[in-house]
Amino acid sequence: MSLVVAWQLKNKKVLIIGGGEVAQGRVELVQKASASVTVIAPEIDERVKNCQVIKREFELADITNEYEMVLSAVDDRTVSRQIYQRCKELKIPVNVADMPPECDFYFGSMINRGPLQVMVSTNGNAPRLAKRVRELIEDRVDELGVDVAIEKVGDLRQRLREKTVPNDENIDTGYEVDTIKTRMKWISNICDDWSFNQMASLTDEQLDAIVDKYPGPCSWEDIISSP
Amino acid sequence: MSLVVAWQLKNKKVLIIGGGEVAQGRVELVQKASASVTVIAPEIDERVKNCQVIKREFELADITNEYEMVLSAVDDRTVSRQIYQRCKELKIPVNVADMPPECDFYFGSMINRGPLQVMVSTNGNAPRLAKRVRELIEDRVDELGVDVAIEKVGDLRQRLREKTVPNDENIDTGYEVDTIKTRMKWISNICDDWSFNQMASLTDEQLDAIVDKYPGPCSWEDIISSP
Repeated sequence: MSLVVAWQLKNKKVLIIGGGEVAQGRVELVQKASASVTVIAPEIDERVKNCQVIKREFELADITNEYEMVLSAVDDRTVSRQIYQRCKELKIPVNVADMPPECDFYFGSMINRGPLQVMVSTNGNAPRLAKRVRELIEDRVDELGVDVAIEKVGDLRQRLREKTVPNDENIDTGYEVDTIKTRMKWISNICDDWSFNQMASLTDEQLDAIVDKYPGPCSWEDIISSP
Repeated sequence: MSLVVAWQLKNKKVLIIGGGEVAQGRVELVQKASASVTVIAPEIDERVKNCQVIKREFELADITNEYEMVLSAVDDRTVSRQIYQRCKELKIPVNVADMPPECDFYFGSMINRGPLQVMVSTNGNAPRLAKRVRELIEDRVDELGVDVAIEKVGDLRQRLREKTVPNDENIDTGYEVDTIKTRMKWISNICDDWSFNQMASLTDEQLDAIVDKYPGPCSWEDIISSP
């Protein structure tokens, strides 16, 4: 089993070695996580963009401490092993494509739907089935409007934060105070009791109506379908 | 958005600072990933077991390069910040509970069913909904027998490996050769065409029967329901 984690790469420097299709996929992955990407390879897939591109043969000295993560996708196994060794020496997390023993971490089969991320791993037992598991989750997410529901709840929480503790300077640093806990409890009731479809259907006016009811009763009937 | 990855911790040393309920949860998480765990705290939850326990106040010098990862779950914010700083200096991946800015990575809502791992993240928008998304995936996984199907396919791949390339020394290192690719293609056909319930229902005898048919036609009708 693996420890599945959501790595934070926002504005962090990631080095991608290689310029083929696999490398291009890696670039997209880390760009979704808002990383600052550098790609080094003599030839680079034309779909690679919005990053620093260094068009030449890779050298080991290219791997420096400025990078928070290194992803390698080159065809040469000797070079791959050297990349891994160098990263270990510098203590940089590394994934070497197609060489499982030379990886600190693996990528799984991912679902990205707005703010929702789901990762499926079969821990090497049946990677092909991971794709099917992903598809059945995607079908359910789309059917219920889960991603839209999550966006609406995110929006609702933001509006409620602005209304209830506009001057709380701790708010953006994520540290909790008692008033935050009360608010979280109230939102939790909505998240637990309303259907995904109900949450996904909320209009701007309805979001405001919900905020107005805080901290009163918060069933769908109390707020949305009341006369 | 995050980069969701499956971190490999097998036999790697992980330091957990704190002994309360959160720390205990962290211990379980990394033990599932077969890490070698050290816990430091004056008082430690009695459910913490199968790890090195150091019952005393934590000191910054406890964090050394021997650890591949540090998870902190202490109530003191000043100490938490010092832990984060020390980990950054030593370039050790770190998660400080309840302090998002002091984390290289977050934990999501996890499903563990045999070899299947699914991680759900709402990227901070609606953590409470992550739990519900997890539950609806769990229901579907259980209904279809997805985890058992994955186990059976893992078993089938192992049997087929033993039959087709018993002396291939590259097998365990994960490097592919042409014969492996042929086998993978054949297994992929099964993974794509059979239902989860069909795969989950396979007996030992049926698994052998499938291996015997390699590399012939491999539909459910060809192998299992043929006269």
